[in-house]
Amino acid sequence: MPLRLDTTAPDFAARFDALVNARREADEDVSRAVADIVRDVRERGDAAIADYTRRFDRHDLDTSGWQVPAEERRAALEGLAPDLRAALELAATRIRAYHAAQRPADSESVDEAGVRMGARWTPVEAAGLYVPGGRAAYPSSVLMNAIPAKAAGVSRLAMVTPTPDGVVNPLVLAAAEIAGVDEVWRIGGAQAIAALAYGSTRIAPVDVIVGPGNAWVAEAKRQLYGVVGIDMVAGPSEILVVADAKNDPDWIAADLLSQAEHDPTSQSILFTDDAAFADAVASAVEAQLGRLQTGATARASWDANGAIIVMDRLEAAPPLVDRLAPEHLELAIDDPDAFFAQVRHAGSVFLGRHTPEAIGDYVAGPNHVLPTGRRARFSSGLSALDFMKRTSFIALDRASLAKIGPAAVALAHAEGLPAHAASVAIRL
Amino acid sequence: MPLRLDTTAPDFAARFDALVNARREADEDVSRAVADIVRDVRERGDAAIADYTRRFDRHDLDTSGWQVPAEERRAALEGLAPDLRAALELAATRIRAYHAAQRPADSESVDEAGVRMGARWTPVEAAGLYVPGGRAAYPSSVLMNAIPAKAAGVSRLAMVTPTPDGVVNPLVLAAAEIAGVDEVWRIGGAQAIAALAYGSTRIAPVDVIVGPGNAWVAEAKRQLYGVVGIDMVAGPSEILVVADAKNDPDWIAADLLSQAEHDPTSQSILFTDDAAFADAVASAVEAQLGRLQTGATARASWDANGAIIVMDRLEAAPPLVDRLAPEHLELAIDDPDAFFAQVRHAGSVFLGRHTPEAIGDYVAGPNHVLPTGRRARFSSGLSALDFMKRTSFIALDRASLAKIGPAAVALAHAEGLPAHAASVAIRL
Repeated sequence: MPLRLDTTAPDFAARFDALVNARREADEDVSRAVADIVRDVRERGDAAIADYTRRFDRHDLDTSGWQVPAEERRAALEGLAPDLRAALELAATRIRAYHAAQRPADSESVDEAGVRMGARWTPVEAAGLYVPGGRAAYPSSVLMNAIPAKAAGVSRLAMVTPTPDGVVNPLVLAAAEIAGVDEVWRIGGAQAIAALAYGSTRIAPVDVIVGPGNAWVAEAKRQLYGVVGIDMVAGPSEILVVADAKNDPDWIAADLLSQAEHDPTSQSILFTDDAAFADAVASAVEAQLGRLQTGATARASWDANGAIIVMDRLEAAPPLVDRLAPEHLELAIDDPDAFFAQVRHAGSVFLGRHTPEAIGDYVAGPNHVLPTGRRARFSSGLSALDFMKRTSFIALDRASLAKIGPAAVALAHAEGLPAHAASVAIRL
Repeated sequence: MPLRLDTTAPDFAARFDALVNARREADEDVSRAVADIVRDVRERGDAAIADYTRRFDRHDLDTSGWQVPAEERRAALEGLAPDLRAALELAATRIRAYHAAQRPADSESVDEAGVRMGARWTPVEAAGLYVPGGRAAYPSSVLMNAIPAKAAGVSRLAMVTPTPDGVVNPLVLAAAEIAGVDEVWRIGGAQAIAALAYGSTRIAPVDVIVGPGNAWVAEAKRQLYGVVGIDMVAGPSEILVVADAKNDPDWIAADLLSQAEHDPTSQSILFTDDAAFADAVASAVEAQLGRLQTGATARASWDANGAIIVMDRLEAAPPLVDRLAPEHLELAIDDPDAFFAQVRHAGSVFLGRHTPEAIGDYVAGPNHVLPTGRRARFSSGLSALDFMKRTSFIALDRASLAKIGPAAVALAHAEGLPAHAASVAIRL
């Protein structure tokens, strides 16, 4: 049974606080083991990578091949069922268009003191993309992580993916081919992250590493943050659906379950202003759970982390939304834009009754890699910006230096930095 | 003696590689001790903060006061020497103008399929600013960290600064007042970072923490990255000056020393196409070192980490600049813009003979918090963006869902996520 709260109950504030602060992330402490692997890969390079791959993925890279050859990637694409290929290509085209528009403009101006200043954006040279093996190897995730890098102008995009027992997922290869991935390495785990960050004899290092992974991969990225750039610290997925009684309860139940089926740690929450509608949705969830292939996972998530919150008026909801800062916010109401204008913290918002969250997972265009665990309070979904950096620039001449230089000299002296002061004063 | 390399020497490539890969960052392992403090502050809140402050800063917060009262901050500003106050205010005005222009525009468009999409930027609600105590308490750093937050629209900006033996630096207080800091807490170290991230009874939590600090502060920020946003992983400061023989050697020597005086781990590098000019700069550095108050620090840095690299033609320099990806790049040459166009990786660039790097530390306007240790390959200086986040949005209607929905259904089924497919299919 999911949690059920009523905003008018006397204990609502305390129980909502508990919901906001509940941690769904596993506390698996792999930091020591990951640190050992990272150090070993840094010191022994390819030999260490091959050792861990033999141990964890049960194949020998020198036999199975370190990289997936270009022919194999092309063959995977050509072997796709036509409707699936068309779907991937539609998704890629739409994702590419959305992310290409994110490239920021350079700036340059001269102010009244005669100082010329601005900023120039450039892509990183190389990016690494982690793709999990097994059940969580999603071609949509390959598109969502790879296309922003290419849209940013990254010239070398190296994908790493574990191939347990040597087996590669052809859907993932096809998506990599569509997205323009340049290299596909058959390695995974913390050892793959370390290889991308430090490089080895075979693998050139990258500047940024993105992509989802298990606790070992996430911890390796966290430890190597600063050696390379990383996308984010990710947690279990979540959706918050705000729905009035004019919705079909079956539609809303389907939306809640689309998140719940990801993992038992996923979270689906419904906000509504109608207790009878809440009951109807709860019943619809039960009915749909019975016939869902992923029902066991979805039920575990819904029972442990699901919540239905009933309130008098949905106008009271935005501050509660901001407390949760949900990864996905679906607004199945009459005027979703007016509601959205009141919300400050959410990863991505799905406006209206015909915008199920899953449309954003695949084909809408905006990224599906989004901040979880209330991190939408301070962070954003993956974008072309994650693969770019900004260089500021300043140009003065004799006249403009004469105008603002003396202030710099005064401040440098006040800070006890006489060489700073001298480098300006000598030119005055 | 600084390192001296000639690009025509047979061992140049190997020796330049060694320079690029040299690590100047201390490997002080404080991670266990910091983890203990963070956990303690999270569990015991104010009591833990007060304990660590008594132990490390030798004062009792309940006696000395947890916060610096608003009157004391105003008094610090009013007590400033007039020229210093004018200098700080000129700096603040220029920094504010530059960072206000960084606020990105929201976007919204409808594509040919009838899908409305876009992104909205909003500031975080609260930001924390760390300001070191003692020697490294720089008012310019307060301005550079606080003003971008305010330019982004952050409504609550909480500063923390250790006040050893209870003593506060009035220059820092004055800068905080000018920058519009809302709260000043007399706490420092890892315990202050933990207090900002988790909050306590007295201190409300923040969403983003920025500002420089010692190894303990840096490690606490690294450990809490993901609980809050942080600015960056910072290392020792560095400058790369590209200068031809038309420069006054004394000017270039002063620029090299302005970086060297920061810390023995700082690095100053000269690229030039004239061996005699290189000798002249080296002599000028020696002469200036003798009369510099910070000469001991600057000499330690110059001897251990300084480098002079002579090449035939400066046209060969940009790829070497990119390898170093310097925090500060000064181009004291005839056509600095043409050179800058060839450079991909640098934190901030200072164009021409009248733009000493120190002008950017104080009054030019762009931020002086910049990526170090080759991190300009993938990261950028502090900006208003570090205090903002982007929410994407998607709106479909019946017709547009009919167009792109079937592709989402196909992909969801291929990924083994039937509830995702159902949430779209039920609306088709």
